[in-house]
Amino acid sequence: MIPFINQLPKDEEVRWLAALNQRLPNENVVSFSELKSSDKAGIELAIVANPNIDELAELKSLIWVHSVWAGVEHLMLSLANSSIDVVRLMDPTLSQTMAEAVLAWSLYLHREMPRYAKQQRKKQWQQHQLVPASKRRIGILGLGELGQVSAKQLQINGFNVMGWSRTEKAIENISCFSGDSGLAEMVAQSDILVCLLPLTSITKGIINKSLLNQLPTGSAIINFARGGIINTSDLLAALDSNHLNHAVLDVFEHEPLNAESELWQHPDITVLPHISAPTNLNSASDIVAKNITTYRTTGQLPTTVNKLIGY
Amino acid sequence: MIPFINQLPKDEEVRWLAALNQRLPNENVVSFSELKSSDKAGIELAIVANPNIDELAELKSLIWVHSVWAGVEHLMLSLANSSIDVVRLMDPTLSQTMAEAVLAWSLYLHREMPRYAKQQRKKQWQQHQLVPASKRRIGILGLGELGQVSAKQLQINGFNVMGWSRTEKAIENISCFSGDSGLAEMVAQSDILVCLLPLTSITKGIINKSLLNQLPTGSAIINFARGGIINTSDLLAALDSNHLNHAVLDVFEHEPLNAESELWQHPDITVLPHISAPTNLNSASDIVAKNITTYRTTGQLPTTVNKLIGY
Repeated sequence: MIPFINQLPKDEEVRWLAALNQRLPNENVVSFSELKSSDKAGIELAIVANPNIDELAELKSLIWVHSVWAGVEHLMLSLANSSIDVVRLMDPTLSQTMAEAVLAWSLYLHREMPRYAKQQRKKQWQQHQLVPASKRRIGILGLGELGQVSAKQLQINGFNVMGWSRTEKAIENISCFSGDSGLAEMVAQSDILVCLLPLTSITKGIINKSLLNQLPTGSAIINFARGGIINTSDLLAALDSNHLNHAVLDVFEHEPLNAESELWQHPDITVLPHISAPTNLNSASDIVAKNITTYRTTGQLPTTVNKLIGY
Repeated sequence: MIPFINQLPKDEEVRWLAALNQRLPNENVVSFSELKSSDKAGIELAIVANPNIDELAELKSLIWVHSVWAGVEHLMLSLANSSIDVVRLMDPTLSQTMAEAVLAWSLYLHREMPRYAKQQRKKQWQQHQLVPASKRRIGILGLGELGQVSAKQLQINGFNVMGWSRTEKAIENISCFSGDSGLAEMVAQSDILVCLLPLTSITKGIINKSLLNQLPTGSAIINFARGGIINTSDLLAALDSNHLNHAVLDVFEHEPLNAESELWQHPDITVLPHISAPTNLNSASDIVAKNITTYRTTGQLPTTVNKLIGY
C-alpha cells in the first residue's frame, strides 16, 4: 500500500490515483484518507504532491517520498533535518515543455510583442529596428535539466545563449558561468535574463536591487522558477525607473496572485497563472511508476534531493 | 549609371545609395532625381523599391529592374504587359527573419498569450490545458523560399507542420498539399493557418468566407504576406461568430493602417505595423550587388519573376 499524500482538488487526485494504479498493478496506491491506523506503521514509501507535513509525520517507518512535481522547496524546508529521502520529478517531457515556454516568451520579448501591443492600444503604427537573434544575449539562471534543455532550444533558434550555475558546467555552444563572480559577469551581458533556479535558502531573493542594477539598461526578465527568487519591490523599482524594460512573471510568492497585487496592472509586467511547464500526468506517472518498480525489485532509490543544497 | 527608383524617405534612400555604391565600386548608383535627360536614354538596368511607374517609363532602353524587396505585386501589375524583366529580392537573411516571426507568433498563439493577456486585464488566475506542440497542426500557405524555411523552423521546434503550394512540392517532414482540393484538405486540419503567399490576381481575397469556414473551430490565422489576400469583412465575421479564435495581422490593404479601422480595437486581433520580416539593408545590398556584377560580367540575369503567375 502506497499513500498518495497531496492537497490537490478531489478530481485531480482521482486522476492521479487512476494513472498510478494503472502503471503499478502490483501496488495499491491510495489517498491518505483511506489509510487505516494499522496500515500506517508499515509504510516506507509515499507519493506526494505538496503534501501536508503533519500527514507525512504520521508515517513512522517512512524511508522516502516521490514527488510528482519538480519543485520541492516546501518539502525540503520541512524535511531538511529528517532522515526521509526525497525524490523529485525529473521528466524529459517537462523539460521540453519548459524549453518551449522559455523560447516562446524569449521570442515575445525579442520581437517586442509587449511594445507593439501598447502601440495597438494607442492605434500607433510605428516600426522598430529588428535586432538579429544572434545579437540578442539571453542569460539563463540555473543549468539543471530544465536550464540545459532550454539553453539548447534557444541556441538552435539562433540566440546568443549564456548560462549560470552554482557549480561549474560545460555545455556545447553555451557560454557557461559559475559562482558569485560568474553571476555578475553573465548578468551584466544579459538582454533577457531567464530564471529557472530552484528555490533554496541561497536563491531566495537572489534577484534583488543589486543584481537588477547589473543588468544592461533596457533588458528584460522572465521568471519561470519560483516567486520567492525575485524581490518584488526591487523589481518594481527597476521597471519604474525604466532600467528594466519588461518582466514576464509566471510564479509568485502566494499563488493564485492576490487580486490586490499591483503586478496585475503594471504596464511592463506580463502576469501568467503558473502555466510555463505544468506536470504532465501521463509522463510523470510513467516515471514515478518506473522508479517505484525499480525500488521494489532492487531496493535501489532514484537520485534523491541533496538536503544541503535543496535540489 | 544605375538609378535607384524608390519612394522611400530621404534618409533611407541615402543609406541604400551608400550601401549599394560601396558594394559596386565600378558603378554609379544614383537617385532618379539626379539623372539628366541625356543619361536616361542609355539606361538598361534600375534598382527599385516600390518605384513610381511614371519614372520607370521614362527609361526607354530599360531591360530589367532589381527590386530590393521580396514583394513585387505593384510592379507586376504595372509591368505585366511590358518586356521589362523583374528580379525580386531572394535573401536567405530575410527568409530566416520571416521564419523567426512565423515561429514567434505561432508560439504566441500555441501558448495562448492573447487569452492570458485578457485574463491579466481582468485579474483572473486560470490555467488552461496545454496542447503538446506535436498535436498543434500548423498549415502554411505558400511554399516558396519563405514558406519552406518557416516550415522547417516550426518542425524542428516540434510542431505538426503542413504546407500548401499551387504546384506540387515535396519537403522532408512536412505534409505537402497542392491545388484547389489540397487547399481545402489542408485548411480543414489547420489549428494555425500561416499566410506567406505572394499577392497575385489568383491569391487576392483567397482567404474568404468559404475558406475560413473550412478551418477547424477555434483555429487562428497569421497573415505575414499582403493585406489583400484576406477578405477583411469575412475575417471579422469569422472572429465575431467565434469560429476563429484569433488573427495576427502584420499587413493591410492600406498601410499604415487607418486610425479609423475597427481592426485596431478588435479583442481578437493582434495588429502589427508590418514588422514580421523587414528587408535587411546590408544583406539585401550584398545580393543586389552580386547579381548586378554577374550581369555586367556575363550578361546573365538572375531568376526573373514569371509574369504569368506574378512571382
